[in-house]
Amino acid sequence: MSDFANTPNPPYFAVIFTSNRTEGDHGYGAMSDEIEALAKEQPGFLGVESVRDSSGYGITISYWESEKAIRDWKQHTQHKIAQDKGKAEWYRNYKVRICKVERDYERSF
Amino acid sequence: MSDFANTPNPPYFAVIFTSNRTEGDHGYGAMSDEIEALAKEQPGFLGVESVRDSSGYGITISYWESEKAIRDWKQHTQHKIAQDKGKAEWYRNYKVRICKVERDYERSF
Repeated sequence: MSDFANTPNPPYFAVIFTSNRTEGDHGYGAMSDEIEALAKEQPGFLGVESVRDSSGYGITISYWESEKAIRDWKQHTQHKIAQDKGKAEWYRNYKVRICKVERDYERSF
Repeated sequence: MSDFANTPNPPYFAVIFTSNRTEGDHGYGAMSDEIEALAKEQPGFLGVESVRDSSGYGITISYWESEKAIRDWKQHTQHKIAQDKGKAEWYRNYKVRICKVERDYERSF
Protein backbone atom coordinates (compact mmCIF):
# COMPACT_ATOMS: atom_id res chain seq x y z
CA MET A 1 0.00 0.00 0.00
CA SER A 2 1.28 3.43 -0.92
CA ASP A 3 0.02 6.95 -0.62
CA PHE A 4 -1.51 9.07 -3.32
CA ALA A 5 0.11 12.36 -4.22
CA ASN A 6 -1.57 15.02 -2.09
CA THR A 7 -2.40 17.32 -4.99
CA PRO A 8 -4.46 20.54 -4.65
CA ASN A 9 -7.75 21.24 -6.39
CA PRO A 10 -7.41 21.18 -10.21
CA PRO A 11 -6.21 22.51 -12.50
CA TYR A 12 -2.63 21.32 -12.10
CA PHE A 13 -0.26 19.40 -14.38
CA ALA A 14 0.99 15.82 -14.65
CA VAL A 15 3.93 14.18 -16.40
CA ILE A 16 3.18 10.52 -17.15
CA PHE A 17 6.40 8.55 -17.68
CA THR A 18 5.82 4.95 -18.86
CA SER A 19 8.96 2.86 -19.28
CA ASN A 20 10.61 -0.53 -19.60
CA ARG A 21 13.83 -0.97 -17.63
CA THR A 22 16.88 -2.81 -18.91
CA GLU A 23 18.21 -5.82 -16.95
CA GLY A 24 20.43 -5.05 -13.94
CA ASP A 25 20.75 -1.94 -11.81
CA HIS A 26 23.56 0.09 -13.47
CA GLY A 27 23.37 2.66 -10.65
CA TYR A 28 19.64 3.22 -11.26
CA GLY A 29 18.42 2.63 -7.71
CA ALA A 30 20.71 5.16 -6.06
CA MET A 31 20.29 7.87 -8.69
CA SER A 32 16.55 7.34 -8.88
CA ASP A 33 16.24 8.01 -5.13
CA GLU A 34 18.49 11.06 -5.45
CA ILE A 35 16.54 12.49 -8.38
CA GLU A 36 13.21 11.96 -6.61
CA ALA A 37 14.54 13.79 -3.54
CA LEU A 38 15.75 16.62 -5.77
CA ALA A 39 12.43 16.82 -7.64
CA LYS A 40 10.64 17.31 -4.32
CA GLU A 41 12.72 20.46 -3.71
CA GLN A 42 11.81 22.07 -7.03
CA PRO A 43 9.47 25.07 -7.24
CA GLY A 44 6.00 23.95 -8.25
CA PHE A 45 6.47 20.26 -7.40
CA LEU A 46 3.21 18.79 -6.02
CA GLY A 47 3.84 15.04 -5.65
CA VAL A 48 4.72 11.77 -7.31
CA GLU A 49 3.15 8.31 -7.74
CA SER A 50 5.28 5.45 -9.05
CA VAL A 51 4.83 1.72 -9.63
CA ARG A 52 7.09 -0.82 -11.35
CA ASP A 53 6.32 -4.52 -11.70
CA SER A 54 8.72 -7.47 -11.64
CA SER A 55 9.00 -7.45 -15.46
CA GLY A 56 10.55 -3.96 -15.35
CA TYR A 57 7.47 -2.19 -16.73
CA GLY A 58 6.69 0.96 -14.79
CA ILE A 59 4.60 4.11 -14.60
CA THR A 60 5.77 7.22 -12.74
CA ILE A 61 3.56 10.30 -12.59
CA SER A 62 4.87 13.57 -11.22
CA TYR A 63 2.48 16.44 -10.51
CA TRP A 64 3.32 20.12 -10.95
CA GLU A 65 1.73 23.53 -10.44
CA SER A 66 2.50 24.78 -13.93
CA GLU A 67 3.96 23.88 -17.31
CA LYS A 68 6.83 26.24 -16.53
CA ALA A 69 7.71 24.15 -13.45
CA ILE A 70 7.81 21.05 -15.71
CA ARG A 71 10.05 22.76 -18.26
CA ASP A 72 12.40 24.06 -15.56
CA TRP A 73 12.75 20.61 -14.01
CA LYS A 74 13.47 19.04 -17.40
CA GLN A 75 16.38 21.50 -17.81
CA HIS A 76 17.80 21.02 -14.29
CA THR A 77 21.49 20.03 -14.58
CA GLN A 78 21.38 16.96 -12.35
CA HIS A 79 18.13 15.82 -13.94
CA LYS A 80 19.71 16.14 -17.39
CA ILE A 81 22.58 13.90 -16.26
CA ALA A 82 20.00 11.33 -15.10
CA GLN A 83 18.10 11.63 -18.40
CA ASP A 84 21.32 10.84 -20.28
CA LYS A 85 22.00 7.82 -18.05
CA GLY A 86 18.42 6.71 -18.65
CA LYS A 87 18.88 6.80 -22.41
CA ALA A 88 22.28 5.07 -22.28
CA GLU A 89 21.70 2.39 -19.64
CA TRP A 90 18.44 2.21 -17.72
CA TYR A 91 15.59 2.09 -20.22
CA ARG A 92 14.78 -0.05 -23.21
CA ASN A 93 12.18 2.53 -24.14
CA TYR A 94 9.92 5.13 -22.58
CA LYS A 95 7.00 7.40 -23.37
CA VAL A 96 6.31 10.79 -21.79
CA ARG A 97 2.96 12.56 -21.77
CA ILE A 98 2.43 16.08 -20.41
CA CYS A 99 -1.13 16.63 -19.21
CA LYS A 100 -3.40 19.19 -17.62
CA VAL A 101 -5.43 17.61 -14.81
CA GLU A 102 -8.93 19.00 -15.15
CA ARG A 103 -10.78 17.22 -12.33
CA ASP A 104 -10.15 14.57 -9.70
CA TYR A 105 -11.81 12.67 -6.87
CA GLU A 106 -10.87 9.99 -4.38
CA ARG A 107 -12.49 7.38 -2.16
CA SER A 108 -11.37 5.51 0.94
CA PHE A 109 -13.19 2.53 2.43
CA MET B 1 8.28 -5.51 -20.70
CA SER B 2 4.95 -4.18 -21.87
CA ASP B 3 3.76 -2.00 -24.68
CA PHE B 4 2.80 1.62 -24.49
CA ALA B 5 -0.68 2.68 -25.50
CA ASN B 6 -0.54 3.56 -29.19
CA THR B 7 -2.16 6.97 -28.81
CA PRO B 8 -2.57 9.49 -31.65
CA ASN B 9 -1.07 12.98 -31.76
CA PRO B 10 -2.32 15.17 -28.88
CA PRO B 11 -4.65 16.49 -27.74
CA TYR B 12 -6.43 13.46 -26.29
CA PHE B 13 -7.59 12.56 -22.78
CA ALA B 14 -6.34 10.33 -19.95
CA VAL B 15 -7.95 8.88 -16.84
CA ILE B 16 -5.31 8.16 -14.17
CA PHE B 17 -6.60 5.59 -11.66
CA THR B 18 -4.25 5.10 -8.67
CA SER B 19 -5.36 2.45 -6.18
CA ASN B 20 -4.53 0.10 -3.34
CA ARG B 21 -6.08 -3.37 -3.59
CA THR B 22 -7.51 -5.29 -0.66
CA GLU B 23 -6.06 -8.72 0.20
CA GLY B 24 -7.31 -11.70 -1.86
CA ASP B 25 -8.92 -11.83 -5.28
CA HIS B 26 -12.70 -11.62 -4.61
CA GLY B 27 -13.39 -12.12 -8.33
CA TYR B 28 -11.19 -9.17 -9.26
CA GLY B 29 -8.95 -10.94 -11.79
CA ALA B 30 -11.76 -12.28 -13.95
CA MET B 31 -13.86 -9.10 -13.90
CA SER B 32 -10.85 -6.89 -14.45
CA ASP B 33 -10.02 -8.77 -17.67
CA GLU B 34 -13.66 -8.61 -18.75
CA ILE B 35 -13.91 -4.86 -18.10
CA GLU B 36 -10.68 -4.16 -19.93
CA ALA B 37 -11.94 -6.11 -22.98
CA LEU B 38 -15.22 -4.18 -22.81
CA ALA B 39 -13.42 -0.82 -22.51
CA LYS B 40 -11.51 -1.60 -25.70
CA GLU B 41 -14.83 -1.86 -27.57
CA GLN B 42 -16.08 1.56 -26.45
CA PRO B 43 -16.29 4.51 -28.86
CA GLY B 44 -13.33 6.80 -28.35
CA PHE B 45 -11.13 4.30 -26.49
CA LEU B 46 -7.46 4.79 -27.44
CA GLY B 47 -5.48 2.48 -25.17
CA VAL B 48 -4.54 1.51 -21.62
CA GLU B 49 -1.35 1.18 -19.56
CA SER B 50 -1.47 -0.60 -16.21
CA VAL B 51 1.02 -1.64 -13.53
CA ARG B 52 0.48 -3.09 -10.05
CA ASP B 53 3.27 -4.08 -7.66
CA SER B 54 3.35 -6.93 -5.17
CA SER B 55 2.09 -4.67 -2.35
CA GLY B 56 -1.19 -4.13 -4.23
CA TYR B 57 -0.42 -0.52 -5.20
CA GLY B 58 -1.28 0.15 -8.83
CA ILE B 59 -1.67 2.76 -11.54
CA THR B 60 -3.95 2.24 -14.54
CA ILE B 61 -4.22 4.93 -17.21
CA SER B 62 -6.84 4.72 -19.93
CA TYR B 63 -6.68 7.05 -22.92
CA TRP B 64 -9.71 8.46 -24.72
CA GLU B 65 -10.53 10.67 -27.69
CA SER B 66 -12.85 13.00 -25.76
CA GLU B 67 -14.27 13.83 -22.36
CA LYS B 68 -17.63 12.60 -23.63
CA ALA B 69 -16.13 9.14 -24.27
CA ILE B 70 -14.87 9.11 -20.65
CA ARG B 71 -18.30 10.11 -19.27
CA ASP B 72 -20.10 7.52 -21.42
CA TRP B 73 -17.77 4.75 -20.24
CA LYS B 74 -18.23 5.77 -16.60
CA GLN B 75 -22.01 5.31 -17.07
CA HIS B 76 -21.79 1.96 -18.90
CA THR B 77 -23.95 -0.60 -17.06
CA GLN B 78 -21.33 -3.34 -16.74
CA HIS B 79 -18.68 -0.82 -15.76
CA LYS B 80 -20.99 0.55 -13.03
CA ILE B 81 -21.37 -2.98 -11.64
CA ALA B 82 -17.57 -3.27 -11.56
CA GLN B 83 -17.27 0.15 -9.89
CA ASP B 84 -19.64 -1.02 -7.15
CA LYS B 85 -17.64 -4.23 -6.64
CA GLY B 86 -14.51 -2.12 -6.49
CA LYS B 87 -15.92 0.04 -3.71
CA ALA B 88 -17.29 -2.95 -1.77
CA GLU B 89 -14.49 -5.48 -2.12
CA TRP B 90 -11.45 -4.76 -4.28
CA TYR B 91 -9.99 -1.44 -3.19
CA ARG B 92 -8.86 0.03 0.10
CA ASN B 93 -8.82 3.40 -1.60
CA TYR B 94 -8.38 4.98 -4.99
CA LYS B 95 -7.88 8.33 -6.67
CA VAL B 96 -9.06 9.29 -10.15
CA ARG B 97 -7.70 12.18 -12.21
CA ILE B 98 -9.14 13.24 -15.57
CA CYS B 99 -6.55 14.94 -17.77
CA LYS B 100 -6.06 16.49 -21.16
CA VAL B 101 -2.81 15.25 -22.73
CA GLU B 102 -1.21 18.30 -24.33
CA ARG B 103 2.03 16.84 -25.74
CA ASP B 104 3.95 13.58 -25.77
CA TYR B 105 7.13 11.95 -27.05
CA GLU B 106 8.79 8.58 -26.88
CA ARG B 107 12.22 6.99 -27.25
CA SER B 108 13.40 3.46 -28.00
CA PHE B 109 17.01 2.30 -27.67
